[in-house]
Amino acid sequence: MGETHTGRRRRLAKLAAAHDADAILVTRLVNVRYLTGLASSNAALLVPAGAPAVLATDGRYAGTAERIAPELPLIRERKTAAALVARAAEDGHARLGFEPHALTVEQHAALDEQARAAGIGLVPLGGRLVEDLRRVKDEEEIDLLREACAITCRAFDAVLPAIGPGRTEREIAIALERAMVDLGAEGPAFASIIASGPNGAVPHHRPGPRELERGDLVTMDFGALYGGYHADMTRTVAIGEPAGWQCDLYDLVHRAQRAGIDAARPGAETKAVDAAARDVVKAAGHGDDFTHGLGHGVGLEIHEAPLMGYDETGKLMDRVPITAEPGVYLAGRGGVRIEDTFVVRADGPELLTTTTKDLLVL
Amino acid sequence: MGETHTGRRRRLAKLAAAHDADAILVTRLVNVRYLTGLASSNAALLVPAGAPAVLATDGRYAGTAERIAPELPLIRERKTAAALVARAAEDGHARLGFEPHALTVEQHAALDEQARAAGIGLVPLGGRLVEDLRRVKDEEEIDLLREACAITCRAFDAVLPAIGPGRTEREIAIALERAMVDLGAEGPAFASIIASGPNGAVPHHRPGPRELERGDLVTMDFGALYGGYHADMTRTVAIGEPAGWQCDLYDLVHRAQRAGIDAARPGAETKAVDAAARDVVKAAGHGDDFTHGLGHGVGLEIHEAPLMGYDETGKLMDRVPITAEPGVYLAGRGGVRIEDTFVVRADGPELLTTTTKDLLVL
Repeated sequence: MGETHTGRRRRLAKLAAAHDADAILVTRLVNVRYLTGLASSNAALLVPAGAPAVLATDGRYAGTAERIAPELPLIRERKTAAALVARAAEDGHARLGFEPHALTVEQHAALDEQARAAGIGLVPLGGRLVEDLRRVKDEEEIDLLREACAITCRAFDAVLPAIGPGRTEREIAIALERAMVDLGAEGPAFASIIASGPNGAVPHHRPGPRELERGDLVTMDFGALYGGYHADMTRTVAIGEPAGWQCDLYDLVHRAQRAGIDAARPGAETKAVDAAARDVVKAAGHGDDFTHGLGHGVGLEIHEAPLMGYDETGKLMDRVPITAEPGVYLAGRGGVRIEDTFVVRADGPELLTTTTKDLLVL
Repeated sequence: MGETHTGRRRRLAKLAAAHDADAILVTRLVNVRYLTGLASSNAALLVPAGAPAVLATDGRYAGTAERIAPELPLIRERKTAAALVARAAEDGHARLGFEPHALTVEQHAALDEQARAAGIGLVPLGGRLVEDLRRVKDEEEIDLLREACAITCRAFDAVLPAIGPGRTEREIAIALERAMVDLGAEGPAFASIIASGPNGAVPHHRPGPRELERGDLVTMDFGALYGGYHADMTRTVAIGEPAGWQCDLYDLVHRAQRAGIDAARPGAETKAVDAAARDVVKAAGHGDDFTHGLGHGVGLEIHEAPLMGYDETGKLMDRVPITAEPGVYLAGRGGVRIEDTFVVRADGPELLTTTTKDLLVL
């Protein structure tokens, strides 16, 4: 991945001048990971416009950093951002861009004092430079995401026989998460949602002691973390023969999801993709019951750019992995959500979560 | 817990005037949880000096908030901090204190613009007001921590028979984490460290595919999360009959740990407690091999105030739960760390992690 990361840093370095900065100080950890490959809880990266980047991390991660990014000069120091401000001063950078969404007011005050004393101006970078670079994935990233999604689907298959009346939401969540780890995941990509019966009306329900009953719809929203990449899938199943309204609701959400995926082409406006799915739900009179956006980007974070909601601006591009997850929630009765992770491609969406979307009756 | 949380908010409100603020805006989520009981990923709290507090959270958590904190006026809004700045303006608060370690530069810029337009001054609060209140625990909190530690010890007992040659570090980590959940934990309190043989020289080693071998020391650092409270325990065991140097190293760390715990009395300087353990290690010629602080507070976070290192200032108090975790790390050979969670009490330390500290030979 050395070449890959060098290329990413080169793309960021080119943006420095446009933002009136001689160098960019990256302190958001997931962005440092994207630009170097180093996953850590303490690291920062200095990316000058016209010179090689410099990495700072503490003794816990220094060995790993030297192994995975041998091309990067390394400063071994606990106060990583301060060390790089000092380095920027040595290297004569007068204007240092920083990520205003990744420094606290307290951290900024201390760095600003240090920078001023060294004759450096700290410049807040507008936009989200690294996050924007991260939207379009390279094929190595998509390979990791594909494996994360494959593990997710296999875990669903493995746990399916154990889902039925009498099992609790929490038991199913634990079973899914353990199956993902047994199948090679680093862990769950996020806290699994298992919402049964009336709990299905709560989009972010936390799995609890409720036992599944005949007549329930059960929404399962979960995913695997693999190589740092996050899968996200939701399936809703029926416990025992579903009632007519349950079949209708399922069919509605399924059609909305298909419309959303079909609309997700390179160049499409994100709000238009949301609308494609939302219009199907609205036409059935359930517009007010679809209470969240259609989906979001996935990658090194479970929720990343682009967001797809009715008021989000932006366009999709080739090689952007996103989710489509329409849901309809009926208070006191239950809900249905169906979600896939897929990659926006010029020749049509590449579905990564391939588990069936037929309504399963368990 | 309603009374408890009201009391906590009252103590914070009293600090507002001393910090030249009419009200305090709490945005750090763990602090909001401490002051209200609400665990969420989006909430903020307004604590005026002379009026009841106001909570803001979004639709996902509003129902829970109403149930657990019915005494609190609730604003249901996604932009929680902005909603409370607006509320502060309505209520005529001219100076609003905020947590400078909990707002990003970007968040602060937006809130500051809103506040100025409303005639409010945002005042960065020096120190860590809520974190400082959180140091001394009430008995309800200690009960939760005691249960978290009991689960941790039971999980160790449950997994012990399966630890031996041929098992990988990662298998042991997974087994411990699953055992904790099976015994009632919400999950692991942090990423478990299982460091075997030479890996034991790396204090924060991530458990990997290395198989345990006869002649290894194996350091296991793990803990359960229960009711929001974090247990933290480390034990080092021997695989097969230990060599003389391993027994000596174990005995040294064990004596250092005992010295640290014995020194942890109300009124003791944190650096003196650290020194009590460190001096034992230094006297044996291993001062440079004990590369971190003696311990830290535990509670709603795994690492919280007070920190105990050689350069940390501050005093211990009655009812402060902390860890004592000296370690000696020998590059290429291995290491020993022994850690307990215990409560500083006037009548002597209350040990919460009660697993034996005799060197176990497996």
